[in-house]
Order: sequence, then C-alpha cells, then structure tokens
Amino acid sequence: MRKELFKHEIAILKDTFGRLLRRHAQTNLVKLINKTHPADLAIVFRYFNDEEQKQVFSLMQANDHTVEFLVELDDTLIEKILDTENAERVSSLIQNASTNDQSYILGSLKEEQAQSVIDLLKKEEQEEIEEIMAYPQDSAGSMMATDVFTLYQNTTCGDALKTLQDQQEAEMVFYLYITDEDDSLVGVASLRALATTPSNTLLKDIMEKRVHSVRPETDQEDVAQIVAQYNYLAVPVIDGDGRLLGIVTVDDVVDVIREEATEDFLQMAGAGKDREILLKSSWENAKVRLPWLFASWIGGVMAAYIIGKYENMLESMIALAAFIPIIIGMGGNIGTQSSTIIVRGMATGRIEIGNEFKVLLKELRVGLILGVLYGIMLGIFANFKFLGSDPMLGVVVGLSICSSMLLATAVGTFTPLILRKLDIDPAVATGPFVTTSIDILGVLLYFMIAGLLLTL
Amino acid sequence: MRKELFKHEIAILKDTFGRLLRRHAQTNLVKLINKTHPADLAIVFRYFNDEEQKQVFSLMQANDHTVEFLVELDDTLIEKILDTENAERVSSLIQNASTNDQSYILGSLKEEQAQSVIDLLKKEEQEEIEEIMAYPQDSAGSMMATDVFTLYQNTTCGDALKTLQDQQEAEMVFYLYITDEDDSLVGVASLRALATTPSNTLLKDIMEKRVHSVRPETDQEDVAQIVAQYNYLAVPVIDGDGRLLGIVTVDDVVDVIREEATEDFLQMAGAGKDREILLKSSWENAKVRLPWLFASWIGGVMAAYIIGKYENMLESMIALAAFIPIIIGMGGNIGTQSSTIIVRGMATGRIEIGNEFKVLLKELRVGLILGVLYGIMLGIFANFKFLGSDPMLGVVVGLSICSSMLLATAVGTFTPLILRKLDIDPAVATGPFVTTSIDILGVLLYFMIAGLLLTL
Repeated sequence: MRKELFKHEIAILKDTFGRLLRRHAQTNLVKLINKTHPADLAIVFRYFNDEEQKQVFSLMQANDHTVEFLVELDDTLIEKILDTENAERVSSLIQNASTNDQSYILGSLKEEQAQSVIDLLKKEEQEEIEEIMAYPQDSAGSMMATDVFTLYQNTTCGDALKTLQDQQEAEMVFYLYITDEDDSLVGVASLRALATTPSNTLLKDIMEKRVHSVRPETDQEDVAQIVAQYNYLAVPVIDGDGRLLGIVTVDDVVDVIREEATEDFLQMAGAGKDREILLKSSWENAKVRLPWLFASWIGGVMAAYIIGKYENMLESMIALAAFIPIIIGMGGNIGTQSSTIIVRGMATGRIEIGNEFKVLLKELRVGLILGVLYGIMLGIFANFKFLGSDPMLGVVVGLSICSSMLLATAVGTFTPLILRKLDIDPAVATGPFVTTSIDILGVLLYFMIAGLLLTL
Repeated sequence: MRKELFKHEIAILKDTFGRLLRRHAQTNLVKLINKTHPADLAIVFRYFNDEEQKQVFSLMQANDHTVEFLVELDDTLIEKILDTENAERVSSLIQNASTNDQSYILGSLKEEQAQSVIDLLKKEEQEEIEEIMAYPQDSAGSMMATDVFTLYQNTTCGDALKTLQDQQEAEMVFYLYITDEDDSLVGVASLRALATTPSNTLLKDIMEKRVHSVRPETDQEDVAQIVAQYNYLAVPVIDGDGRLLGIVTVDDVVDVIREEATEDFLQMAGAGKDREILLKSSWENAKVRLPWLFASWIGGVMAAYIIGKYENMLESMIALAAFIPIIIGMGGNIGTQSSTIIVRGMATGRIEIGNEFKVLLKELRVGLILGVLYGIMLGIFANFKFLGSDPMLGVVVGLSICSSMLLATAVGTFTPLILRKLDIDPAVATGPFVTTSIDILGVLLYFMIAGLLLTL
C-alpha cells in the first residue's frame, strides 16, 4: 500500500514536470525544482529526454541543492549533463561542496574537463581533491568525508560540548573522534555519552578505546562489511601512522551494498558490471555481453563437434537426438543453482575457507537426489514415447540425465571456489564456465553412455 | 589488504575457540565469550559443529551480550540452539531485551515454544510483544524499535536537552521526534539543531515539519528504499491517526538490503529464497530446488517431443542434430542476460512504469546485433565442418541462432515486466520461464527454418 503511495508521489512529480516542460514555464519550473527534494529530483530526472534534461539543468542554480542533486545521480548521467557545460559553470556549481562530493562529481567527468575545473578552484581545495582522487576507485579513501569533527583527549566533556555547539561545518556528527597530541586516533565517544557525563570529566576517561578503523586503500566492500556487521553509523579511515583522514558514513555504505549486489547479479549473467547498463547504447550493451556469449558459442561448437563424431550412432537411433536439449538443460540449470548459492554465500561471508568440502559434499548429495528423481522420470517417458526404439533407450537417457546433473553440481560448486583461490572474482567467470562446460561434458557423457549400453 | 586483516582476526578467534573447546576449558571459554564482540561471536559460531554450539551456548549468561549475539544469528540458527532449552531459560535470557529483539528471537522459535516463553514474561511485555508479532513478517512493524524518545512541540530547546540527558533507555537517539497534544507526530529535529539553538526557543519553531514516515504494514523493501534514497538514519512508523509507533533504524535497513539481494539471487536461479540454505539438509535443499528443475524438465520433454516430430528431417540430414545445443544454449544465455538486467533494474528502481517499451526496444536491438554476429560465425563453421552436407545448412543454423537469440531477448525482457504487472515477484518466476520457453521455441524455430530452406 505504502509502496503505491511512494510511487504515486514520484508519478505526480513526473507529470507536473512534464506539463511545465511542455509549456516552457520557466518561472514555475524553477520553483518546482527548488521545492523538490534532491533525491526525488534525481529519480524524476531519469525519465526526461535529453532535451528536457538540458532544460531543467540549465535552470538550476549554483547552490547546495544542486550539488545534492548531482551526487544522487549515477556517474554516467553526471558526465552526460556536465559534458557540454564550460569549466567556469562547473567550478562555480561545486566550489562550496564538500571535498568528497567534489571529487565524486569530478571523477565522473572526462579527465580533461575535470582538470580544467580543478584549475579554477582554490589552491587548498585543489590539493584536497587531488589527494582524494588519487585513491583507487571504490576504496575507502575515495568515498570518505574529510571534514570530520575531532577532539583532543584531554579536553573536558563540558568544553567538548561547547566546541561542538559552535561547529557549523561538520554536518553529520555521528561519533566524536578523539585524538592524542600526535593527531592519532585514540578513541571514540557517542554524543550521548558526552551529554550525560559530568562536565569536568576528561574525554579520555569516557572514550571507547577499541575502534574499528580502515585504511584509505581498503575496498568499499570490506568497509561495507564492517559497518554492516557491527551496526556502525560511520567508520574512521586512518593512515599508516594512525592519523584520522576521514570517515565513511552509513548512507554511503547503503549505496555500496545495493550497487555491489547489482554488479554481482549482472556479472553472473555475463552482462558486464555496469549498473547503468540501461543508459548505455545498444552497441555498448552488445559489446559488454559479447564475451560470455562467445564462451557459450565455443561450448556449443565443441558440442556440435562431439555430436558429429557420434554421427553413426545417431543414424542408427535417431531418437537419441531428441533428448540432447533436456540433458544439457537440466545439467545447466542445476549447475547454475549450485554456483549461485556458492557465489552469493561467499559474497555474504556464509562460505568461508574451511567449510568448502562440506558444502561440496552437500551439493553432490542434492545433485544425486534430484538426478535420480528426474532420471527415472525421463527414463519412463523415453520408453513410453519412443516405443519403437530399443528398450535400453530409457536406461541411457535416465543414466545420462542423472550423471549430467551430478557432474553439474560438482562443476557449479567447484568453479567459484577455485576462482576465489586464484583471486579471480567468482561472480565474473563462474556463469560462462559452468554452462559452457555442461554443454560439452553433458553431450559427451550422453553419447559415451549410449555407446556402452546400446547395441547399434 | 584490510580484508585479509579482518578475516585474519576472525580466523584467530576461530582457532582459539577450537582449542579451548577441545580442552573443555570452561573458565577460559567464558572469559573469551565475554571478551568477543557479539557480532564476531555470531560469525565464529557458524563454524562450530552441533556439539560445540551447544557447549558454547550453555556457557552464555542471561545478559545484553547474549541477546546481542542471538539477534546477530539467522532465525534458523536461533531456532536450532534454543529448541532444546526450556521456556524458563529462554525467558530469563530475553526478559531485559528490547521489544523488537524479543520478538525477533521469539519469531524464530516454534510457535508452541514461543507461546510458553511469552506466558512467562511480564503482562505489559506480553502485550507489546504480541502487538509487534501480529504485524506481517518483513513489515516495518515487525522490525521497528518501539522505545522511541519523543518530545512535545511546546517544549523549549533547553528543557528538551535536559530531558534528553536524563534518558537512559533510548540508546540510539538519531533524531528527536516531536508530537502534538494528541501524540501525533508533527515534526523532527536533529540533536545538533537542539544543541545550537537558544535554550528558550520552542521545538515547534525549529523542527522540520515534512517528515517521511511509513506504516507498520509497509514492506521492509519499501522502508529500505526510503532510507537509502533520502540517506536517513531512521524512519518513523506511524498508525492511521498519525501516532508514532516506533522507528526503523538504518542498521536494520542495511541487513534488509543485503538479505533481499541474496533472496533475489537465489530465487532467480530457482534455489528458493532461504538465505540459510547452507544450514539446511540436502533433502530440504533438493525439495526447494525441485520446482524450477521440474519446469525445465517439462521444457526438455516438450523439446524432445518436437524433435521426435521432425524425425524424418533428422534422418535425411543427421548434421542438424549437432547444432541443437548451441541454438538453445545461446538463446538461453542471452535471454538470461536480458531478464537479469530487467529484474535487477526493477529491484533498484531503474526500470519504472513508462520506460518499459524503450527498454524492450533496446534489448531487441542488442539481440539483433549479437544474433547476426554469432549467426554468421556459426553459419561459416557449419559449412566448413560439415562439408558433405547441404550448403544451405550454414544458412539454416545461422538464421536459427539469430532468431533464437532475438526471440530470447524478447522473452527475457517481457517475462519479468509482465510478471510485475500481474503482481508476481519477477525474481521467482522469470528464470524457469525464460530458459524453458527458449528450449521449446528454439528447437521449434530451428526445425521450421530447416523445413523451409532445406530440400529433404
């Protein structure tokens, strides 16, 4: 019910924008833009065509609202709308934004354009941005907020509270990070602890000294795992000397978790890893999806080659051809189930080093149970449908489907486990390998079993 | 690098527990349990065998640490370890927990056991728990925290700050929720706004009046979407009269997002939706995966039936059989790519009502590009490999693969879009439908094209 309501609001917003855009009602458009939450505006913006996007964006002023709107967009879209803007407009848009918002926006632009914008910013801002942008993409360093509110450990709670009240900059104060004389992070305290402690107590006496922290090089997925596991609102980023560089906040972690899941999904289906695949052209789309399909094509060609080798067998019993789809299909499907369970289990930390063997055994048992079941069913069907054929045909197809399914669970389980050992992302390579090898092995097994059991 | 470190810590913890368990070193085990973060303990706990799990849990005392540990476990595991405990122990364990932790733990137990535990709790707690447990599973009501700190709108900021400092209960104060004389939620203020405003200002003059709220029936996925979209730390849950019932906090939303992604993954592969599939027995596993495989079995049987119908054609040109795997395989794979992009695009809100047609057209273009490419490649291979055959064989297989891939993109795109229109979860039903229909349609198309172009 509530979902409808939420979608309903977005739909109304979309209609209102559409009407004003058609009427070129500039003044009303400006009013509506300013009244709309930046996150909502980012959603509605996707539905505009290129012309409308240009029109709406040209009406947006250089203020916080516009920056918030921009950072809610995906990088592909940022690049698209800022591509035609000159460096002056872009730099005036982002000059008052936080460093991590600035670097996110600049990171979405073409390198050349980004550089001319950076050249227009203030010296100190330039340095900060370049520092952030030097961290690897998708690392804690590239997503951290650098304007963190810190306090010295020998400050009293009373003084800390006063300092806090004077702070205008650090908008989202989640935790109070406490440092020693060398600016090293030594502890953390909650806002509540500060407010409920006698005002002459020193911070170092109330702070929690065990702080989970990450390094700027830490991958965003690992940051997300720490935040998710310990229910943190933010996690500090420190350098090699223990100095606080910034914090990664939970709202960014929420985005990371959503995006990583989407990437894993797309990669497992061989559809690239670009979340914004829908914004890309058909050509780019095709290019990304080509490699997996090529693996599958090679598998199919090899299967054709194998079947060609057994041409004589097929000639004596043409009915054998009828069961090729089901034998590779059932194998491919159960293999995909196994590999999905394993890939996802590894991503969520449910499968770790140490329990792989147990997992493999269980998958094999599942493969055996389902293989025997569907093998018997298919054996009966084969003998019933192809009455004229050799009565052994049922045994052959039954056995083949059972062994193809058993083999598929093994391949589906083994492949991602081995890829991880080799430090290859299992989500990328598992899909093509599993289906392709079942295409080949399934057909081969089938004709070998037929050769053994049928007198042709 | 940091990932290794994090995993390293868990590995050490696992080893230490293992050693102490083997030595039955009770005193040291108790010490280690109390020293370990509940979230870490929950991770390590998965690796223990049944015996070890029992031993560790029997050493845990009735305190906050144990409750935090329990709520970090998945429901299957909670049920398993509490199943043999008597109602007295369970009720003493959870009696001081928050209502939503209590109801999460009780909701994981068998109904009978949960009821006997509830009977042992205090009257008022019983009522609160029963209220929470009455909300549908996976709704905002079932996951909200009910001990929310609220303030009356005519309170001054100074008084509010004092009241806040006396609060012991509401541990996680994210926002200050402000109500009117009827207890209706009328606004929200940040802790910072309170601290930085002159103390005689009334709350109603500083509060933000536009508050995004949800109903207790709201699905957790929609709650997650709101929190993610607006970067909230918590979202209030209100009843029909606008009264504040509780809040859903971002840490729970993080869990929801991870779990929903995992469920979608498993469902798309027809492996059920149970995140704890690894904890289930092989039989249960097989049972869950049976239905999709049955759909695929039916598809395979129908394909066998179709091929049987074209037996004469196969007899005259046995080479036709060799290309069956590649034609259905390429179709199945590109269809899976399309449906994955669509299912995930709908889950993340990238595909909405209104742009389906555009998406379908783009997929068809991608299907055409790749179909033509791989069709030509296969056509050349077929004529090269089966030199003895009809030269038209290359044209037949080339055309077949192209049309099978084009058709597959259409089916892969259409199916999830239509399922959503029918209010069926696209993640559940898309997978089996797409691969099964390509098995059938691909084979049918192939033989129809062969019948038209070959003179057999």
